[in-house]
Amino acid sequence: MRELRKDPIVGRWVIFSIERSRRPSDFQLEAAAKRGGPCPFCPGQEESTPSEVLAYRSVGSAPNAPGWQVRVVPNRYPALGIEGALDERTQGLFEKMNGIGAHEVIIETPDHHASLATLPLAHIEAVLWAFRDRTLDLMQDTRFCSLQIFKNHGAAAGASLEHPHSQLIALPIVPKRLQEELTACAEYYRRHGGCLFCALIQQDMQMGERVVVENAAFVALTPFASRFPFEVCLLPKTHAAAFERASREIYHLLAAILREVLQRIHTLLQDPPYNLMLHSAPWTTACDAYYHWHLELTPRLTGVAGFEWGTGFYINPTLPEEAARFLRDVPIEQRD
Amino acid sequence: MRELRKDPIVGRWVIFSIERSRRPSDFQLEAAAKRGGPCPFCPGQEESTPSEVLAYRSVGSAPNAPGWQVRVVPNRYPALGIEGALDERTQGLFEKMNGIGAHEVIIETPDHHASLATLPLAHIEAVLWAFRDRTLDLMQDTRFCSLQIFKNHGAAAGASLEHPHSQLIALPIVPKRLQEELTACAEYYRRHGGCLFCALIQQDMQMGERVVVENAAFVALTPFASRFPFEVCLLPKTHAAAFERASREIYHLLAAILREVLQRIHTLLQDPPYNLMLHSAPWTTACDAYYHWHLELTPRLTGVAGFEWGTGFYINPTLPEEAARFLRDVPIEQRD
Repeated sequence: MRELRKDPIVGRWVIFSIERSRRPSDFQLEAAAKRGGPCPFCPGQEESTPSEVLAYRSVGSAPNAPGWQVRVVPNRYPALGIEGALDERTQGLFEKMNGIGAHEVIIETPDHHASLATLPLAHIEAVLWAFRDRTLDLMQDTRFCSLQIFKNHGAAAGASLEHPHSQLIALPIVPKRLQEELTACAEYYRRHGGCLFCALIQQDMQMGERVVVENAAFVALTPFASRFPFEVCLLPKTHAAAFERASREIYHLLAAILREVLQRIHTLLQDPPYNLMLHSAPWTTACDAYYHWHLELTPRLTGVAGFEWGTGFYINPTLPEEAARFLRDVPIEQRD
Repeated sequence: MRELRKDPIVGRWVIFSIERSRRPSDFQLEAAAKRGGPCPFCPGQEESTPSEVLAYRSVGSAPNAPGWQVRVVPNRYPALGIEGALDERTQGLFEKMNGIGAHEVIIETPDHHASLATLPLAHIEAVLWAFRDRTLDLMQDTRFCSLQIFKNHGAAAGASLEHPHSQLIALPIVPKRLQEELTACAEYYRRHGGCLFCALIQQDMQMGERVVVENAAFVALTPFASRFPFEVCLLPKTHAAAFERASREIYHLLAAILREVLQRIHTLLQDPPYNLMLHSAPWTTACDAYYHWHLELTPRLTGVAGFEWGTGFYINPTLPEEAARFLRDVPIEQRD
């Protein structure tokens, strides 16, 4: 049973994803249990996952068999189900709809022990192409309007499997966080006739102190009001609303800066847990003029507790200017 | 060095609280280090904390010495500093001010091994009185406009010390989460001439399925769009905007329902980690007609990862109707 419910006060949506009736004691058991057996994402274990929806493979290799470099499969335990109609309904102050969406896993490499920070540049590029290809395919489903691509690296960042992978969830609702960005950008555009992110990039590049690294197309910044220590935002320097409409050259340059930032974080913080989140224009909002896609990268070094949950404030023990300086100072060997 | 910075896109505030220049490797060391020595919140260790700002004591006992039942002290490692002016300033798109606020610890009992779920009713009432007394005192400081009272129970909920305690942070800004509630309630009031929370309470009490327990003044509900399994909201049934202006009888009845809900959660989920957060009207907003104070109680049974951080969506494996039924069915011995 899967259902989407809207909080009647703050408008936040919650996905209820109930595989089976869980008893309260299940929470303890699950925390204690370790998955056994071979890794379902490794070559030779293709039958452990649902059938692939996309794979970049060696010529001649068969679907759902070894020979792939990047492989995308439906999540075996999806948060949202792909079949059915949304069927929105209200009951007094309450709004809900069926839990419809797509939940897929992007297996980034056949190598269980690799990581995005260590893969060759061309391979990271292929992962970005997989993000793009799946987005373009799912955009054709008129039930959806937005898509969240994200990566949980390390158990403390929510990864339940070690094998390098990202995930995507296609949604029938524009997420609250994305909507907040859209609203702020629309308002800035109305007042100033430009893009708020472009203005921020310009100011931060002039100031310089929060710039970690840049290349021909991208800049990596530690945001002025970073919530977390060593949080980094990767932004295209030229205005663009949608990740999936970028050119081949842009994916190449994104792979390069992403790898460099991940390498710097990996070295500086000893392979910390992190989350990576892509924010891109929802395809049902005409926001090309004012929205600006970007990647958020947040190492998980500090916890979040009652104060943060209660207020929406965050407490960060590291200034972004210090974080940027430490990240810039990491020695990096240039490869490829 | 403490500084408050505003995110120029979504308007979220971040507290930068830099006790000393932390090197990146400090994050690993801190995670590994365990505090040694006696508990600074236990009787006899009063010199381990800053001087008390409030204590309910046996007649004749001296300040900062044993003999107290509830003791409130400034946090030794405050997120915000109590001295100085806010000194708001902007730099282009960036806004910041000095990190001014009050950060206090409410030591709930001298008994290191007690918990809110097991303390006598009169003692829980005394803790609520301490919340109220500190709020009334801090409201006189014109630099502040709002106050977050919260409790982190268990390491997974962010508690760094085991001894039962809550915290409060007085803030110079109305927090984003509270502002979202205020905005929604003001809008509902404008349209319908009533309180949104009152309407929700009425609907939920009529439906019944999400009611955990109620008494003469309070109802405990599992919210329709609960973010977390077994999340409970405790609300006064009669409209009231501000916690600190409640009558003596209200604190008595709040202590009773809070203890009962905590006991049910403690028994059902085997003393899980949880956060408790009080939402009450900021004293600089004239919202008496439309805001409704309440307590949010969220057990920490599930994690939050890239999807939740990226979207503001939550994934909950337990329906609130099921959670309420499980909580209602817990056998409770009536005491006091």
